[in-house]
Amino acid sequence: MQRLFSEDGSVEAVNERMVRSVNRRLAEIMACLVGHLHAFAKETQLTQGEWETAIDFLTRTGQMCSGERQEFILLSDTLGFSMLVDAINNRRPAGATESTVFGPFHVAGAPIRKMGDTINLDGKGESCLYEGRVLDLDGNPVAGAHVDVWSDNAEGFYDVQQPGIQPRWNNRGIFVTGQDGAYRFVGIKPVSYPIPNDGPVGQMLGQLGRHACRPAHMHFLVTAHSYHRLVTHTFVGDDPYLDSDTVFGVKETLVAPFERVEGGPTLWRSQFDFVLVDRQQPPVHPCANAASR
Amino acid sequence: MQRLFSEDGSVEAVNERMVRSVNRRLAEIMACLVGHLHAFAKETQLTQGEWETAIDFLTRTGQMCSGERQEFILLSDTLGFSMLVDAINNRRPAGATESTVFGPFHVAGAPIRKMGDTINLDGKGESCLYEGRVLDLDGNPVAGAHVDVWSDNAEGFYDVQQPGIQPRWNNRGIFVTGQDGAYRFVGIKPVSYPIPNDGPVGQMLGQLGRHACRPAHMHFLVTAHSYHRLVTHTFVGDDPYLDSDTVFGVKETLVAPFERVEGGPTLWRSQFDFVLVDRQQPPVHPCANAASR
Repeated sequence: MQRLFSEDGSVEAVNERMVRSVNRRLAEIMACLVGHLHAFAKETQLTQGEWETAIDFLTRTGQMCSGERQEFILLSDTLGFSMLVDAINNRRPAGATESTVFGPFHVAGAPIRKMGDTINLDGKGESCLYEGRVLDLDGNPVAGAHVDVWSDNAEGFYDVQQPGIQPRWNNRGIFVTGQDGAYRFVGIKPVSYPIPNDGPVGQMLGQLGRHACRPAHMHFLVTAHSYHRLVTHTFVGDDPYLDSDTVFGVKETLVAPFERVEGGPTLWRSQFDFVLVDRQQPPVHPCANAASR
Repeated sequence: MQRLFSEDGSVEAVNERMVRSVNRRLAEIMACLVGHLHAFAKETQLTQGEWETAIDFLTRTGQMCSGERQEFILLSDTLGFSMLVDAINNRRPAGATESTVFGPFHVAGAPIRKMGDTINLDGKGESCLYEGRVLDLDGNPVAGAHVDVWSDNAEGFYDVQQPGIQPRWNNRGIFVTGQDGAYRFVGIKPVSYPIPNDGPVGQMLGQLGRHACRPAHMHFLVTAHSYHRLVTHTFVGDDPYLDSDTVFGVKETLVAPFERVEGGPTLWRSQFDFVLVDRQQPPVHPCANAASR
Protein backbone atom coordinates (compact mmCIF):
# COMPACT_ATOMS: atom_id res chain seq x y z
CA MET A 1 0.00 0.00 0.00
CA GLN A 2 1.41 3.36 -1.03
CA ARG A 3 1.13 6.31 1.30
CA LEU A 4 -2.17 8.21 1.10
CA PHE A 5 -2.18 11.99 0.92
CA SER A 6 -1.95 14.06 4.09
CA GLU A 7 -1.16 17.73 4.60
CA ASP A 8 2.01 16.95 6.53
CA GLY A 9 3.16 14.16 4.24
CA SER A 10 2.07 15.77 0.98
CA VAL A 11 5.51 15.92 -0.64
CA GLU A 12 6.36 12.30 0.12
CA ALA A 13 2.94 11.11 -1.09
CA VAL A 14 3.57 12.67 -4.50
CA ASN A 15 7.26 11.91 -4.88
CA GLU A 16 7.02 8.25 -3.87
CA ARG A 17 4.78 7.77 -6.87
CA MET A 18 7.51 8.59 -9.41
CA VAL A 19 9.22 5.64 -11.07
CA ARG A 20 12.81 6.85 -11.29
CA SER A 21 13.98 4.34 -13.89
CA VAL A 22 11.90 5.82 -16.75
CA ASN A 23 13.54 9.25 -16.82
CA ARG A 24 15.83 9.62 -13.83
CA ARG A 25 16.68 13.29 -14.39
CA LEU A 26 13.03 14.31 -14.85
CA ALA A 27 12.07 12.45 -11.67
CA GLU A 28 14.86 14.28 -9.81
CA ILE A 29 13.75 17.66 -11.16
CA MET A 30 10.06 17.07 -10.48
CA ALA A 31 10.66 15.75 -6.94
CA CYS A 32 12.60 18.93 -6.14
CA LEU A 33 9.88 21.08 -7.75
CA VAL A 34 7.08 19.34 -5.83
CA GLY A 35 8.96 19.90 -2.57
CA HIS A 36 9.30 23.61 -3.23
CA LEU A 37 5.76 24.10 -4.60
CA HIS A 38 4.21 22.41 -1.57
CA ALA A 39 6.41 24.38 0.84
CA PHE A 40 5.31 27.54 -0.97
CA ALA A 41 1.60 26.71 -0.47
CA LYS A 42 2.18 25.87 3.19
CA GLU A 43 4.26 28.97 3.96
CA THR A 44 1.79 31.32 2.29
CA GLN A 45 -1.27 29.38 3.50
CA LEU A 46 -2.52 29.77 -0.05
CA THR A 47 -6.31 30.18 -0.23
CA GLN A 48 -8.62 28.45 -2.70
CA GLY A 49 -9.32 31.81 -4.36
CA GLU A 50 -5.61 32.53 -4.75
CA TRP A 51 -5.13 29.10 -6.30
CA GLU A 52 -7.90 29.90 -8.79
CA THR A 53 -6.19 33.22 -9.61
CA ALA A 54 -2.91 31.38 -10.22
CA ILE A 55 -4.56 28.82 -12.53
CA ASP A 56 -6.18 31.65 -14.48
CA PHE A 57 -2.88 33.59 -14.68
CA LEU A 58 -0.91 30.59 -15.98
CA THR A 59 -3.65 29.79 -18.50
CA ARG A 60 -3.71 33.34 -19.84
CA THR A 61 0.10 33.39 -19.96
CA GLY A 62 0.10 30.27 -22.14
CA GLN A 63 -2.63 31.60 -24.37
CA MET A 64 -0.76 34.90 -24.92
CA CYS A 65 2.10 32.97 -26.54
CA SER A 66 2.40 33.01 -30.33
CA GLY A 67 5.12 32.88 -32.96
CA GLU A 68 6.06 36.49 -32.13
CA ARG A 69 5.40 36.54 -28.39
CA GLN A 70 6.67 34.27 -25.61
CA GLU A 71 4.90 35.33 -22.42
CA PHE A 72 6.33 32.47 -20.31
CA ILE A 73 9.88 33.65 -21.15
CA LEU A 74 8.84 37.15 -20.07
CA LEU A 75 7.56 35.64 -16.81
CA SER A 76 10.82 33.76 -16.30
CA ASP A 77 12.80 36.91 -17.14
CA THR A 78 10.89 39.22 -14.80
CA LEU A 79 11.19 36.79 -11.88
CA GLY A 80 14.98 36.67 -12.32
CA PHE A 81 14.71 33.00 -13.23
CA SER A 82 16.26 33.36 -16.70
CA MET A 83 19.25 35.24 -15.29
CA LEU A 84 19.67 32.58 -12.62
CA VAL A 85 19.69 29.74 -15.16
CA ASP A 86 22.16 31.76 -17.23
CA ALA A 87 24.38 32.22 -14.19
CA ILE A 88 24.26 28.53 -13.25
CA ASN A 89 25.21 27.49 -16.78
CA ASN A 90 27.84 30.13 -17.49
CA ARG A 91 30.18 30.31 -14.52
CA ARG A 92 33.43 31.76 -15.85
CA PRO A 93 36.91 32.18 -14.45
CA ALA A 94 37.97 35.64 -13.21
CA GLY A 95 38.89 37.94 -16.08
CA ALA A 96 36.44 36.45 -18.56
CA THR A 97 33.59 38.65 -19.79
CA GLU A 98 30.38 37.92 -17.92
CA SER A 99 27.26 36.67 -19.69
CA THR A 100 23.72 37.95 -19.45
CA VAL A 101 20.31 36.96 -20.85
CA PHE A 102 20.02 36.18 -24.55
CA GLY A 103 16.65 37.90 -24.91
CA PRO A 104 13.95 37.06 -27.46
CA PHE A 105 15.10 39.38 -30.27
CA HIS A 106 18.18 37.68 -31.72
CA VAL A 107 17.77 36.53 -35.32
CA ALA A 108 20.17 33.96 -36.74
CA GLY A 109 21.68 34.64 -40.16
CA ALA A 110 22.32 38.39 -39.92
CA PRO A 111 24.51 39.72 -42.76
CA ILE A 112 28.27 39.58 -42.30
CA ARG A 113 29.36 43.20 -42.70
CA LYS A 114 32.73 44.79 -43.52
CA MET A 115 34.68 45.84 -40.46
CA GLY A 116 33.80 49.46 -39.63
CA ASP A 117 30.45 49.40 -41.46
CA THR A 118 27.22 50.71 -40.01
CA ILE A 119 24.39 48.48 -38.87
CA ASN A 120 21.97 51.40 -38.66
CA LEU A 121 19.73 51.32 -41.73
CA ASP A 122 16.85 53.61 -40.75
CA GLY A 123 19.02 56.66 -40.12
CA LYS A 124 17.36 57.33 -36.77
CA GLY A 125 19.13 57.91 -33.47
CA GLU A 126 22.49 59.17 -32.24
CA SER A 127 25.36 57.45 -34.03
CA CYS A 128 27.94 55.57 -32.00
CA LEU A 129 31.23 53.93 -32.90
CA TYR A 130 31.65 50.56 -31.18
CA GLU A 131 35.17 49.19 -31.05
CA GLY A 132 37.38 46.88 -29.07
CA ARG A 133 39.04 43.52 -29.22
CA VAL A 134 38.19 39.88 -28.72
CA LEU A 135 40.83 38.37 -26.43
CA ASP A 136 41.61 35.13 -24.62
CA LEU A 137 42.21 34.92 -20.87
CA ASP A 138 45.93 35.64 -21.40
CA GLY A 139 45.20 38.81 -23.36
CA ASN A 140 46.01 37.34 -26.77
CA PRO A 141 43.82 38.46 -29.68
CA VAL A 142 41.30 35.93 -31.01
CA ALA A 143 41.24 35.92 -34.81
CA GLY A 144 38.19 34.77 -36.78
CA ALA A 145 35.77 35.52 -33.99
CA HIS A 146 32.20 36.26 -35.08
CA VAL A 147 30.87 39.34 -33.29
CA ASP A 148 27.10 39.20 -33.84
CA VAL A 149 25.45 42.44 -32.64
CA TRP A 150 21.87 43.72 -32.39
CA SER A 151 20.03 46.57 -30.70
CA ASP A 152 16.71 48.38 -30.71
CA ASN A 153 16.25 51.45 -32.89
CA ALA A 154 15.98 55.02 -31.61
CA GLU A 155 12.31 54.46 -30.76
CA GLY A 156 12.97 51.40 -28.61
CA PHE A 157 11.86 48.66 -31.04
CA TYR A 158 13.83 45.84 -32.66
CA ASP A 159 13.36 45.41 -36.41
CA VAL A 160 11.46 42.14 -35.88
CA GLN A 161 8.89 43.98 -33.75
CA GLN A 162 8.17 46.34 -36.66
CA PRO A 163 8.27 44.36 -39.91
CA GLY A 164 7.41 46.65 -42.81
CA ILE A 165 8.22 49.73 -40.73
CA GLN A 166 11.94 49.16 -40.08
CA PRO A 167 14.28 47.90 -42.82
CA ARG A 168 15.11 44.22 -42.53
CA TRP A 169 18.33 43.68 -40.50
CA ASN A 170 18.16 47.23 -39.12
CA ASN A 171 20.68 47.57 -36.28
CA ARG A 172 22.03 44.04 -36.78
CA GLY A 173 25.16 42.59 -38.27
CA ILE A 174 28.06 40.18 -37.87
CA PHE A 175 31.71 41.30 -37.86
CA VAL A 176 34.60 38.85 -38.18
CA THR A 177 37.86 39.68 -36.41
CA GLY A 178 41.25 39.57 -38.09
CA GLN A 179 44.66 38.70 -36.61
CA ASP A 180 44.50 41.65 -34.20
CA GLY A 181 41.19 40.42 -32.72
CA ALA A 182 39.71 43.88 -33.25
CA TYR A 183 36.09 44.70 -34.10
CA ARG A 184 34.68 48.07 -35.11
CA PHE A 185 31.22 49.07 -36.30
CA VAL A 186 28.82 51.99 -36.27
CA GLY A 187 25.42 51.70 -34.65
CA ILE A 188 23.30 53.98 -32.52
CA LYS A 189 23.51 54.74 -28.82
CA PRO A 190 20.66 52.40 -27.85
CA VAL A 191 17.67 53.55 -25.80
CA SER A 192 15.79 51.99 -22.90
CA TYR A 193 12.43 50.37 -23.69
CA PRO A 194 9.62 48.49 -21.97
CA ILE A 195 9.26 44.77 -22.55
CA PRO A 196 5.85 43.87 -24.05
CA ASN A 197 3.56 44.67 -21.11
CA ASP A 198 0.03 44.36 -22.47
CA GLY A 199 -0.36 40.78 -21.19
CA PRO A 200 -0.53 38.88 -17.88
CA VAL A 201 3.15 39.59 -17.08
CA GLY A 202 2.61 43.33 -17.52
CA GLN A 203 -0.39 43.09 -15.16
CA MET A 204 1.73 41.22 -12.63
CA LEU A 205 4.48 43.87 -12.77
CA GLY A 206 1.85 46.58 -12.24
CA GLN A 207 0.46 44.78 -9.17
CA LEU A 208 3.99 44.46 -7.79
CA GLY A 209 4.65 48.17 -8.30
CA ARG A 210 7.39 47.39 -10.83
CA HIS A 211 8.09 49.13 -14.13
CA ALA A 212 8.58 47.07 -17.31
CA CYS A 213 11.70 48.81 -18.61
CA ARG A 214 15.10 47.59 -19.65
CA PRO A 215 18.05 50.01 -19.58
CA ALA A 216 19.65 50.78 -22.96
CA HIS A 217 22.01 48.05 -24.16
CA MET A 218 23.79 46.63 -27.21
CA HIS A 219 23.58 42.84 -27.62
CA PHE A 220 26.67 40.78 -28.40
CA LEU A 221 26.96 37.11 -29.30
CA VAL A 222 30.65 36.34 -29.65
CA THR A 223 31.71 32.94 -31.00
CA ALA A 224 35.07 31.58 -32.02
CA HIS A 225 36.41 28.12 -32.77
CA SER A 226 37.59 26.32 -29.59
CA TYR A 227 36.12 28.99 -27.27
CA HIS A 228 32.91 28.93 -25.23
CA ARG A 229 30.27 31.11 -26.85
CA LEU A 230 29.59 34.38 -25.06
CA VAL A 231 26.07 35.87 -24.88
CA THR A 232 26.12 39.31 -23.32
CA HIS A 233 25.18 42.99 -23.55
CA THR A 234 27.01 46.24 -22.94
CA PHE A 235 24.96 48.80 -21.01
CA VAL A 236 24.87 52.58 -21.29
CA GLY A 237 26.09 53.88 -17.93
CA ASP A 238 23.84 56.93 -17.60
CA ASP A 239 20.60 55.03 -18.12
CA PRO A 240 17.94 55.75 -15.46
CA TYR A 241 16.91 52.06 -15.41
CA LEU A 242 20.44 50.73 -14.94
CA ASP A 243 19.77 49.60 -11.36
CA SER A 244 16.21 48.40 -11.98
CA ASP A 245 16.34 46.40 -15.24
CA THR A 246 13.02 44.53 -15.24
CA VAL A 247 14.78 41.32 -16.33
CA PHE A 248 17.75 41.76 -13.93
CA GLY A 249 20.28 41.57 -16.79
CA VAL A 250 22.72 44.24 -15.58
CA LYS A 251 26.13 43.29 -14.19
CA GLU A 252 28.59 45.96 -13.10
CA THR A 253 31.33 44.68 -15.40
CA LEU A 254 29.02 45.05 -18.42
CA VAL A 255 28.45 48.79 -17.99
CA ALA A 256 30.51 50.24 -20.87
CA PRO A 257 31.90 53.72 -21.42
CA PHE A 258 29.81 55.76 -23.85
CA GLU A 259 31.83 58.90 -24.60
CA ARG A 260 30.57 61.92 -26.47
CA VAL A 261 32.83 62.62 -29.47
CA GLU A 262 33.30 66.28 -30.52
CA GLY A 263 33.51 66.83 -34.27
CA GLY A 264 33.93 63.17 -35.21
CA PRO A 265 32.00 61.10 -37.75
CA THR A 266 29.86 59.68 -34.90
CA LEU A 267 28.30 61.42 -31.89
CA TRP A 268 29.37 58.72 -29.45
CA ARG A 269 32.11 56.15 -29.00
CA SER A 270 31.99 52.98 -26.88
CA GLN A 271 35.08 50.87 -26.36
CA PHE A 272 34.75 47.38 -24.89
CA ASP A 273 36.95 44.25 -25.01
CA PHE A 274 35.48 40.76 -24.84
CA VAL A 275 37.45 38.03 -23.08
CA LEU A 276 36.54 34.48 -24.15
CA VAL A 277 37.18 31.23 -22.32
CA ASP A 278 38.97 28.37 -24.08
CA ARG A 279 37.00 25.11 -24.09
CA GLN A 280 40.15 23.41 -22.76
CA GLN A 281 39.96 25.57 -19.61
CA PRO A 282 38.98 23.42 -16.60
CA PRO A 283 35.32 24.19 -15.85
CA VAL A 284 34.36 26.26 -12.83
CA HIS A 285 32.84 23.71 -10.45
CA PRO A 286 29.10 23.70 -10.99
CA CYS A 287 28.35 23.43 -7.28
CA ALA A 288 30.79 26.16 -6.20
CA ASN A 289 28.01 28.59 -5.38
CA ALA A 290 25.21 26.13 -4.75
CA ALA A 291 27.06 24.78 -1.70
CA SER A 292 26.88 28.16 0.03
CA ARG A 293 23.13 28.48 -0.42
CA MET B 1 21.29 52.03 -5.98
CA GLN B 2 19.37 48.79 -5.86
CA ARG B 3 21.19 45.52 -5.66
CA LEU B 4 22.31 44.08 -9.02
CA PHE B 5 21.71 40.44 -9.85
CA SER B 6 24.15 37.77 -8.67
CA GLU B 7 23.79 34.01 -8.46
CA ASP B 8 24.11 34.02 -4.67
CA GLY B 9 21.90 37.04 -4.11
CA SER B 10 19.37 36.22 -6.82
CA VAL B 11 16.32 35.98 -4.54
CA GLU B 12 17.02 39.26 -2.77
CA ALA B 13 17.68 41.06 -6.05
CA VAL B 14 14.21 40.14 -7.30
CA ASN B 15 12.26 40.51 -4.08
CA GLU B 16 13.68 43.91 -3.14
CA ARG B 17 12.15 45.23 -6.33
CA MET B 18 8.56 44.60 -5.20
CA VAL B 19 6.68 47.60 -3.83
CA ARG B 20 4.67 46.04 -1.03
CA SER B 21 2.14 48.84 -0.65
CA VAL B 22 0.42 48.19 -4.01
CA ASN B 23 -0.82 44.68 -3.27
CA ARG B 24 0.69 43.45 -0.04
CA ARG B 25 -0.63 39.90 -0.23
CA LEU B 26 0.54 39.42 -3.84
CA ALA B 27 4.00 40.74 -2.93
CA GLU B 28 4.14 38.26 -0.02
CA ILE B 29 3.04 35.37 -2.24
CA MET B 30 5.44 36.25 -5.07
CA ALA B 31 8.41 36.77 -2.73
CA CYS B 32 7.84 33.29 -1.30
CA LEU B 33 7.44 31.83 -4.81
CA VAL B 34 10.63 33.47 -6.10
CA GLY B 35 12.56 32.08 -3.13
CA HIS B 36 11.37 28.56 -3.84
CA LEU B 37 11.76 28.76 -7.64
CA HIS B 38 15.34 30.00 -7.35
CA ALA B 39 16.19 27.36 -4.74
CA PHE B 40 14.75 24.76 -7.12
CA ALA B 41 17.01 25.92 -10.00
CA LYS B 42 20.06 25.95 -7.72
CA GLU B 43 19.38 22.54 -6.16
CA THR B 44 18.79 20.87 -9.51
CA GLN B 45 21.50 22.90 -11.31
CA LEU B 46 18.93 23.33 -14.04
CA THR B 47 20.47 23.42 -17.50
CA GLN B 48 19.59 25.86 -20.27
CA GLY B 49 18.06 23.00 -22.28
CA GLU B 50 15.91 21.93 -19.33
CA TRP B 51 14.74 25.52 -18.91
CA GLU B 52 13.73 25.54 -22.60
CA THR B 53 11.83 22.27 -22.11
CA ALA B 54 10.00 23.80 -19.12
CA ILE B 55 9.04 26.93 -21.10
CA ASP B 56 7.74 24.74 -23.91
CA PHE B 57 5.82 22.50 -21.48
CA LEU B 58 4.11 25.44 -19.74
CA THR B 59 3.27 27.03 -23.10
CA ARG B 60 1.70 23.83 -24.42
CA THR B 61 -0.19 23.37 -21.15
CA GLY B 62 -1.73 26.83 -21.50
CA GLN B 63 -2.57 26.29 -25.13
CA MET B 64 -4.31 22.96 -24.36
CA CYS B 65 -6.84 24.82 -22.19
CA SER B 66 -10.31 25.47 -23.59
CA GLY B 67 -13.86 25.78 -22.32
CA GLU B 68 -13.99 22.00 -21.82
CA ARG B 69 -10.41 21.30 -20.78
CA GLN B 70 -8.29 22.83 -18.02
CA GLU B 71 -4.79 21.38 -18.38
CA PHE B 72 -3.26 23.59 -15.63
CA ILE B 73 -5.79 22.19 -13.13
CA LEU B 74 -4.78 18.69 -14.24
CA LEU B 75 -1.14 19.69 -13.64
CA SER B 76 -1.97 21.02 -10.18
CA ASP B 77 -4.02 17.90 -9.43
CA THR B 78 -1.36 15.41 -10.53
CA LEU B 79 1.35 17.17 -8.51
CA GLY B 80 -0.79 16.92 -5.35
CA PHE B 81 -1.02 20.71 -5.28
CA SER B 82 -4.83 20.85 -5.50
CA MET B 83 -5.20 18.38 -2.62
CA LEU B 84 -2.74 20.41 -0.57
CA VAL B 85 -4.63 23.68 -1.14
CA ASP B 86 -7.85 21.82 -0.25
CA ALA B 87 -6.26 20.50 2.95
CA ILE B 88 -4.94 23.93 3.97
CA ASN B 89 -8.34 25.52 3.45
CA ASN B 90 -10.51 22.79 4.96
CA ARG B 91 -9.03 21.76 8.27
CA ARG B 92 -11.85 20.22 10.27
CA PRO B 93 -12.28 19.10 13.86
CA ALA B 94 -12.10 15.38 14.67
CA GLY B 95 -15.32 13.57 13.79
CA ALA B 96 -16.19 15.80 10.83
CA THR B 97 -16.20 14.22 7.37
CA GLU B 98 -12.99 14.97 5.50
CA SER B 99 -12.95 16.89 2.23
CA THR B 100 -11.26 16.02 -1.03
CA VAL B 101 -10.78 17.68 -4.44
CA PHE B 102 -13.81 19.17 -6.16
CA GLY B 103 -12.75 17.98 -9.63
CA PRO B 104 -13.65 19.63 -12.93
CA PHE B 105 -16.92 17.75 -13.60
CA HIS B 106 -19.43 19.31 -11.19
CA VAL B 107 -22.27 21.18 -12.89
CA ALA B 108 -24.32 23.67 -10.91
CA GLY B 109 -28.10 23.49 -11.20
CA ALA B 110 -28.65 19.73 -11.27
CA PRO B 111 -32.30 18.68 -10.86
CA ILE B 112 -33.63 18.26 -7.32
CA ARG B 113 -34.92 14.70 -7.23
CA LYS B 114 -37.38 12.87 -4.96
CA MET B 115 -35.71 11.02 -2.12
CA GLY B 116 -34.99 7.46 -3.23
CA ASP B 117 -35.03 8.27 -6.97
CA THR B 118 -32.44 7.12 -9.41
CA ILE B 119 -29.84 9.41 -10.98
CA ASN B 120 -28.88 6.81 -13.58
CA LEU B 121 -30.53 7.75 -16.86
CA ASP B 122 -28.58 5.68 -19.41
CA GLY B 123 -29.39 2.33 -17.82
CA LYS B 124 -25.76 1.23 -17.94
CA GLY B 125 -23.74 -0.17 -15.05
CA GLU B 126 -24.37 -2.03 -11.81
CA SER B 127 -27.10 -0.36 -9.74
CA CYS B 128 -26.27 0.76 -6.23
CA LEU B 129 -28.40 2.15 -3.41
CA TYR B 130 -26.70 5.03 -1.64
CA GLU B 131 -28.05 5.93 1.78
CA GLY B 132 -27.07 7.53 5.05
CA ARG B 133 -27.60 10.65 7.11
CA VAL B 134 -26.31 14.19 7.28
CA LEU B 135 -25.35 14.90 10.89
CA ASP B 136 -23.75 17.61 12.99
CA LEU B 137 -20.71 17.01 15.19
CA ASP B 138 -22.99 15.97 18.10
CA GLY B 139 -24.74 13.35 15.98
CA ASN B 140 -27.95 15.34 15.50
CA PRO B 141 -29.62 15.07 12.06
CA VAL B 142 -29.33 18.10 9.78
CA ALA B 143 -32.64 18.85 8.06
CA GLY B 144 -32.83 20.72 4.75
CA ALA B 145 -29.31 19.74 3.70
CA HIS B 146 -28.72 19.64 -0.06
CA VAL B 147 -26.88 16.47 -1.06
CA ASP B 148 -25.60 17.17 -4.58
CA VAL B 149 -24.17 13.98 -6.14
CA TRP B 150 -22.44 13.13 -9.41
CA SER B 151 -20.44 10.24 -10.85
CA ASP B 152 -19.10 8.88 -14.12
CA ASN B 153 -21.16 6.36 -16.09
CA ALA B 154 -20.33 2.67 -16.45
CA GLU B 155 -17.82 3.51 -19.20
CA GLY B 156 -15.89 6.00 -17.08
CA PHE B 157 -17.19 9.26 -18.59
CA TYR B 158 -19.18 12.07 -17.03
CA ASP B 159 -22.21 13.27 -18.99
CA VAL B 160 -20.47 16.58 -19.78
CA GLN B 161 -17.64 14.68 -21.47
CA GLN B 162 -20.14 13.03 -23.84
CA PRO B 163 -22.80 15.58 -24.78
CA GLY B 164 -25.22 14.01 -27.25
CA ILE B 165 -24.12 10.53 -26.24
CA GLN B 166 -25.21 10.48 -22.58
CA PRO B 167 -28.56 11.96 -21.47
CA ARG B 168 -28.26 15.39 -19.87
CA TRP B 169 -27.88 15.13 -16.06
CA ASN B 170 -27.02 11.43 -16.30
CA ASN B 171 -25.72 10.25 -12.92
CA ARG B 172 -26.41 13.62 -11.26
CA GLY B 173 -28.99 14.94 -8.86
CA ILE B 174 -29.71 16.85 -5.66
CA PHE B 175 -31.52 15.32 -2.69
CA VAL B 176 -32.86 17.42 0.20
CA THR B 177 -32.91 15.87 3.67
CA GLY B 178 -35.96 15.91 5.94
CA GLN B 179 -36.13 16.05 9.76
CA ASP B 180 -34.28 12.70 10.07
CA GLY B 181 -31.30 14.05 8.06
CA ALA B 182 -31.48 10.96 5.85
CA TYR B 183 -30.66 10.76 2.14
CA ARG B 184 -31.30 7.85 -0.21
CA PHE B 185 -30.83 7.52 -3.96
CA VAL B 186 -30.04 4.95 -6.63
CA GLY B 187 -26.99 5.36 -8.84
CA ILE B 188 -24.40 2.98 -10.23
CA LYS B 189 -21.37 1.49 -8.57
CA PRO B 190 -18.90 3.92 -10.20
CA VAL B 191 -15.86 2.79 -12.15
CA SER B 192 -12.25 3.96 -12.24
CA TYR B 193 -11.19 6.11 -15.20
CA PRO B 194 -8.17 7.94 -16.57
CA ILE B 195 -8.07 11.73 -16.42
CA PRO B 196 -7.69 13.28 -19.90
CA ASN B 197 -4.16 12.19 -20.79
CA ASP B 198 -3.67 13.18 -24.43
CA GLY B 199 -1.93 16.46 -23.50
CA PRO B 200 1.28 17.69 -21.82
CA VAL B 201 0.19 16.40 -18.38
CA GLY B 202 -0.39 12.92 -19.78
CA GLN B 203 3.10 13.05 -21.34
CA MET B 204 4.56 14.13 -18.00
CA LEU B 205 2.84 11.26 -16.17
CA GLY B 206 4.21 8.84 -18.78
CA GLN B 207 7.77 10.15 -18.30
CA LEU B 208 7.36 9.77 -14.53
CA GLY B 209 6.17 6.16 -14.91
CA ARG B 210 2.78 7.08 -13.43
CA HIS B 211 -0.66 5.96 -14.61
CA ALA B 212 -3.42 8.53 -15.18
CA CYS B 213 -6.23 6.71 -13.33
CA ARG B 214 -8.56 7.71 -10.56
CA PRO B 215 -10.14 4.99 -8.41
CA ALA B 216 -13.94 4.70 -8.62
CA HIS B 217 -15.77 7.30 -6.54
CA MET B 218 -19.12 9.06 -6.03
CA HIS B 219 -18.92 12.86 -5.66
CA PHE B 220 -20.80 14.64 -2.87
CA LEU B 221 -21.31 18.36 -2.30
CA VAL B 222 -23.24 18.72 0.95
CA THR B 223 -24.51 22.16 1.94
CA ALA B 224 -26.83 23.27 4.72
CA HIS B 225 -27.71 26.62 6.24
CA SER B 226 -25.24 27.62 9.00
CA TYR B 227 -22.83 24.76 8.19
CA HIS B 228 -19.54 24.82 6.27
CA ARG B 229 -20.00 23.32 2.84
CA LEU B 230 -18.48 19.88 2.37
CA VAL B 231 -16.87 18.82 -0.92
CA THR B 232 -15.91 15.17 -0.85
CA HIS B 233 -16.12 11.74 -2.51
CA THR B 234 -16.80 8.24 -1.28
CA PHE B 235 -14.46 5.61 -2.72
CA VAL B 236 -15.11 2.00 -3.68
CA GLY B 237 -12.89 -0.06 -1.38
CA ASP B 238 -11.91 -2.83 -3.80
CA ASP B 239 -10.62 -0.50 -6.51
CA PRO B 240 -7.15 -1.39 -7.83
CA TYR B 241 -6.20 2.32 -7.99
CA LEU B 242 -7.26 3.10 -4.41
CA ASP B 243 -3.68 3.59 -3.23
CA SER B 244 -2.44 5.30 -6.40
CA ASP B 245 -5.12 7.87 -7.31
CA THR B 246 -3.38 10.06 -9.87
CA VAL B 247 -4.75 13.21 -8.18
CA PHE B 248 -4.07 11.97 -4.61
CA GLY B 249 -7.74 12.40 -3.60
CA VAL B 250 -8.13 9.28 -1.45
CA LYS B 251 -8.38 9.53 2.33
CA GLU B 252 -8.86 6.42 4.45
CA THR B 253 -12.01 7.79 6.12
CA LEU B 254 -13.64 8.27 2.70
CA VAL B 255 -13.43 4.63 1.65
CA ALA B 256 -17.07 3.53 1.92
CA PRO B 257 -18.61 0.07 2.23
CA PHE B 258 -20.04 -1.20 -1.07
CA GLU B 259 -21.98 -4.35 -0.22
CA ARG B 260 -23.38 -6.79 -2.73
CA VAL B 261 -27.17 -7.19 -2.17
CA GLU B 262 -28.74 -10.57 -2.88
CA GLY B 263 -32.18 -10.44 -4.49
CA GLY B 264 -32.78 -6.73 -3.82
CA PRO B 265 -33.86 -4.03 -6.25
CA THR B 266 -30.20 -2.91 -6.61
CA LEU B 267 -27.05 -5.00 -7.00
CA TRP B 268 -25.09 -2.98 -4.46
CA ARG B 269 -25.65 -0.86 -1.36
CA SER B 270 -23.36 1.82 0.07
CA GLN B 271 -24.10 3.40 3.43
CA PHE B 272 -22.24 6.57 4.46
CA ASP B 273 -23.01 9.38 6.94
CA PHE B 274 -21.75 12.92 6.41
CA VAL B 275 -20.80 15.01 9.44
CA LEU B 276 -20.92 18.77 8.87
CA VAL B 277 -19.23 21.51 10.87
CA ASP B 278 -21.28 24.41 12.22
CA ARG B 279 -20.00 27.82 11.11
CA GLN B 280 -20.07 28.85 14.80
CA GLN B 281 -17.48 26.16 15.57
CA PRO B 282 -14.15 27.80 16.43
CA PRO B 283 -11.88 27.34 13.38
CA VAL B 284 -9.03 24.86 13.44
CA HIS B 285 -5.97 27.10 13.65
CA PRO B 286 -4.68 27.63 10.10
CA CYS B 287 -1.06 27.28 11.18
CA ALA B 288 -1.59 24.16 13.30
CA ASN B 289 0.11 21.94 10.75
CA ALA B 290 2.25 24.56 9.04
CA ALA B 291 4.22 25.03 12.27
CA SER B 292 5.34 21.41 12.23
CA ARG B 293 6.59 21.57 8.65
